[in-house]
Amino acid sequence: MNKHNPIPTITTGPLPASRKVWHPGQIHPGLRVPMREIELHPSAMEPPVTVYDASGPYTDPEAVIDIARGLPRPREGWTVAGDVERYDGRQVQPEDNGFVTGERLTPAFPRQYQPLRATEGKAVTQMAYARAGIITPEMEFVAIRENLGRRAAREQLIRDGNDWGAAIPDHVTPEFVRQEIASGRAIIPANINHPEVEPMIIGRNFLVKINANIGNSAVTSSMEEEVEKLVWAIRWGADTVMDLSTGRNIHNIRDWIIRNSPVPIGTVPIYQALEKVGGIAEDLTWEIFRDTLIEQAEQGVDYFTIHAGVRLPFIPLTAERVTGIVSRGGSIMAKWCLHHHRESFLYEHFDEICDIMRAYDVSFSLGDGLRPGSIADANDAAQFAELETLGELTQIAWEKDCQVMIEGPGHVPMHKIKENMDKQLETCGEAPFYTLGPLTTDIAPGYDHITSAIGAAMIGWFGTAMLCYVTPKEHLGLPDRDDVKVGVITYKIAAHAADLAKGHPAAKLRDDALSRARFEFRWEDQFNISLDPDTARSFHDQTLPKEAHKLAHFCSMCGPKFCSMKISHDIRAEARAQQGMEDMAQKYREGGDLYMPADAAGQD
Amino acid sequence: MNKHNPIPTITTGPLPASRKVWHPGQIHPGLRVPMREIELHPSAMEPPVTVYDASGPYTDPEAVIDIARGLPRPREGWTVAGDVERYDGRQVQPEDNGFVTGERLTPAFPRQYQPLRATEGKAVTQMAYARAGIITPEMEFVAIRENLGRRAAREQLIRDGNDWGAAIPDHVTPEFVRQEIASGRAIIPANINHPEVEPMIIGRNFLVKINANIGNSAVTSSMEEEVEKLVWAIRWGADTVMDLSTGRNIHNIRDWIIRNSPVPIGTVPIYQALEKVGGIAEDLTWEIFRDTLIEQAEQGVDYFTIHAGVRLPFIPLTAERVTGIVSRGGSIMAKWCLHHHRESFLYEHFDEICDIMRAYDVSFSLGDGLRPGSIADANDAAQFAELETLGELTQIAWEKDCQVMIEGPGHVPMHKIKENMDKQLETCGEAPFYTLGPLTTDIAPGYDHITSAIGAAMIGWFGTAMLCYVTPKEHLGLPDRDDVKVGVITYKIAAHAADLAKGHPAAKLRDDALSRARFEFRWEDQFNISLDPDTARSFHDQTLPKEAHKLAHFCSMCGPKFCSMKISHDIRAEARAQQGMEDMAQKYREGGDLYMPADAAGQD
Repeated sequence: MNKHNPIPTITTGPLPASRKVWHPGQIHPGLRVPMREIELHPSAMEPPVTVYDASGPYTDPEAVIDIARGLPRPREGWTVAGDVERYDGRQVQPEDNGFVTGERLTPAFPRQYQPLRATEGKAVTQMAYARAGIITPEMEFVAIRENLGRRAAREQLIRDGNDWGAAIPDHVTPEFVRQEIASGRAIIPANINHPEVEPMIIGRNFLVKINANIGNSAVTSSMEEEVEKLVWAIRWGADTVMDLSTGRNIHNIRDWIIRNSPVPIGTVPIYQALEKVGGIAEDLTWEIFRDTLIEQAEQGVDYFTIHAGVRLPFIPLTAERVTGIVSRGGSIMAKWCLHHHRESFLYEHFDEICDIMRAYDVSFSLGDGLRPGSIADANDAAQFAELETLGELTQIAWEKDCQVMIEGPGHVPMHKIKENMDKQLETCGEAPFYTLGPLTTDIAPGYDHITSAIGAAMIGWFGTAMLCYVTPKEHLGLPDRDDVKVGVITYKIAAHAADLAKGHPAAKLRDDALSRARFEFRWEDQFNISLDPDTARSFHDQTLPKEAHKLAHFCSMCGPKFCSMKISHDIRAEARAQQGMEDMAQKYREGGDLYMPADAAGQD
Repeated sequence: MNKHNPIPTITTGPLPASRKVWHPGQIHPGLRVPMREIELHPSAMEPPVTVYDASGPYTDPEAVIDIARGLPRPREGWTVAGDVERYDGRQVQPEDNGFVTGERLTPAFPRQYQPLRATEGKAVTQMAYARAGIITPEMEFVAIRENLGRRAAREQLIRDGNDWGAAIPDHVTPEFVRQEIASGRAIIPANINHPEVEPMIIGRNFLVKINANIGNSAVTSSMEEEVEKLVWAIRWGADTVMDLSTGRNIHNIRDWIIRNSPVPIGTVPIYQALEKVGGIAEDLTWEIFRDTLIEQAEQGVDYFTIHAGVRLPFIPLTAERVTGIVSRGGSIMAKWCLHHHRESFLYEHFDEICDIMRAYDVSFSLGDGLRPGSIADANDAAQFAELETLGELTQIAWEKDCQVMIEGPGHVPMHKIKENMDKQLETCGEAPFYTLGPLTTDIAPGYDHITSAIGAAMIGWFGTAMLCYVTPKEHLGLPDRDDVKVGVITYKIAAHAADLAKGHPAAKLRDDALSRARFEFRWEDQFNISLDPDTARSFHDQTLPKEAHKLAHFCSMCGPKFCSMKISHDIRAEARAQQGMEDMAQKYREGGDLYMPADAAGQD
């Protein structure tokens, strides 16, 4: 897991036994909504298993990948004529790339597009259109995507789950998506300057999503290396990716990432703003921050983490914490506020921030700068004071038709997780919750993908719409390629466990298909349906390497004589053979006793 | 993680910065109750962190380890004169070791002890003594052990948690232990023929425990190899170990394991009984099974998994399951019942089984032979029909003063976990629950330690007393040394997260100590307090290898300029400096607004 990797080339090609398919729209017939179909062994006599596919063109064998050209731009032309205008964007400044020059400067992305923005007075957000009763292509796209190829009419549906008061429909319609976005319960992060994106939706009544964080290394890293981090994360299922790069070249690297990303990209603009003032928090100004928002909005960043809830009066509430302020953005703003004895410029200028967001449809991810960094600090006054402020800010953003999600903790013991979800729903008007973990104990550095997967699965079940992954390196170091994969797979597990518990109608199909394959000893199917076919196969091979064993009708754990599954098959055969077994079972259920008369004892 | 390991020697020596200490008894002054003290850096100005220590003499640098001599026998002489008798035990039969002879036969353990059993009519179980009002050395031992060195009087205690109706005391007294055992709510698995054991308690009102499974490999394995599997599992925190060996040499290997085990050993006797009849389930008889119980009870096995709840009328209920019967023991008994069309001999002879258990104080682990093997089969009629039977059998066992715990699932989605716990408490009279996982989704073979840790943490919180670990190889192959460690650490995380959420008074101390170390950049302390210091240190070294960095006042993730923790320290300093900050915070809490007059804006 810890070997050091050479600079990778871009990973392409389908996952095992998988084929990418595209579903067309009806309102917008030009749509091509991607899904992945996993082919099963003929003996299964089952249709392919259809799963959600966030990987974009990289897993399409037909696609020609050239990161210097960027991805196709399916959303080009989806904007409404008259609502948007092209204009000469802001000029790239030396500080945008940390004043690096010459050969240490990452080259600009070869193709520069003129940015789009809303025409004067217009809002071009999905929320604005939803409220106007318009079903955008993005809305129909995600409606089709969320149904995972299910045809509502064709099946009778058994709903099984507890959604804690959410309203997950049997079948997602474009109109349902529109209503959810209009109400603020869901967002589609999709900047009008990121036409490469394949739209996805974040909301409590949809599949639980996961985010993976990437960032440039301290050492100068190549564009290819940075793009591969993105491609690797979405190959395993990351629904959005946050670029947390700092230091040099971040403007140019961001361009390479966005132009090659089929998933929404999020950033924390305060990081770049801080770079522009040489890392001195006190030197930050609204003007520098504002300029950074425009810079990144024009590039096509889909959502911004904005720590506008870190207000001056809350800072003393953190002074006696065990771990103080652990959010980078939060601590930067806290330092600025304390130094100047002033209220946060993010809070004071929130209106103007909204005006920028609505002009490009950049979604808010209102940051939890005061999230707890330890079990001891969970659910404290500082955390909840900030949450209340995020609720106020949500209302202001909604008045401006801006899309909003709310970031959440952090470190929280299991018995305090639900309070976080309940408070967030109540305080923030059901705006989507986007949580980091939470970690359910502090005592396992090196395993925090696991301490946090426990909390993530639970809070996802309770209603969190997107889970930010945690890798095994959390608290210790920078995740390598293997850590990123483990983090993504772990969070796909948490998100899927949450979908199952919420009773999402499409979630259980994959579990059942895998379990049938397991029971019928279709080893290849079992590997291929799993979240990580390569690892499943290699673990099996360690015990039973031979190809023949992939056809073996016994488990690698027990061997032929001792396999309970094998015995169960005999039981099923015998049970079915035995005339009236079912009636007898029925008789038992009705309170009957043994169905064999006692005197039959000892026969055979 | 997957490299193949050579045959290991026995792993000995303390964990980093750790020292084994022993606490004496008061009722029984001769007791030496082991705990581990983790030394912190002087700058912490904190006492050592005391943690539970299941590792036995192997981590004691003073101890001389010779597996051919076995461990010291602290419990020798703890039995009550007149209650027990030594006698000539059963002769070892060729079939006990699978008829293997010559050099392929694992040598018998060099020292054979004459077995102990209860004298005619006596019960020598902890439950019998507890009901008689007697506080045994075992009871005082576990009482001291559960308090983790806390002196109740010396601290004022803040209880924080939700124990779902359990009754966890502020401080565990020997009398409390006695009452819990008398009521059947807790057990101390400790065969009178296993004097090497350091007593531990399993119950809902005590620390959540974990079990690790080991077993001999298909290839003939050395005694040292088998003992090392045990030592390795308890080094990382396994509280009990189940020996699931099959095939040859299992009698002799079991002897080597028990004589060298400081933790209770559990087995599934039906596995060996099946070996004795050449693996043909139909050929099993009560007499062969009974003989196997005696054989293993005389060796000192502390608890037996007995699948007496798999009754003939329940078998048809499994016929239409997605994954049928996945328990080995359950499927063996089901096959026997179906073939003979007879009720299970385990069920019919349960009284006689109790008489054997009480004569040696072997605890029951009533097996869930019909547990669900997939999300689809969770909480179904077969599973709950068996659970009701286990409830009946519990009452019978309790009438005979036998100690009982109940095994549980399996594969269960999150929304169906609590029903399992509630039904078990109600049906089985609060007998301790001992669950495998449960796995919260089927779609991640290769990561089932994680899919199950989510369910294990939750059901542990709800009241499960012991969690049976699952390794990454579950469903795929045999766990190697690294898999066992990952499985144990993962389950220590689940158990500890449960202790925190239940509000166990000693649980949070370790989290707080680690978080303080993290906030103060005491890297070595952070590693040493963690569940796996080696992994934490190596992950940190991958990013910041230099020794100097272990003293660095910044995180390896962000570097010096960007570290939020560092900024928090500045904030704390400034906050404390600023006169009246606390009052201002108070003012805010009372609904005040900013405490800086607006005209102060722009100063500095």
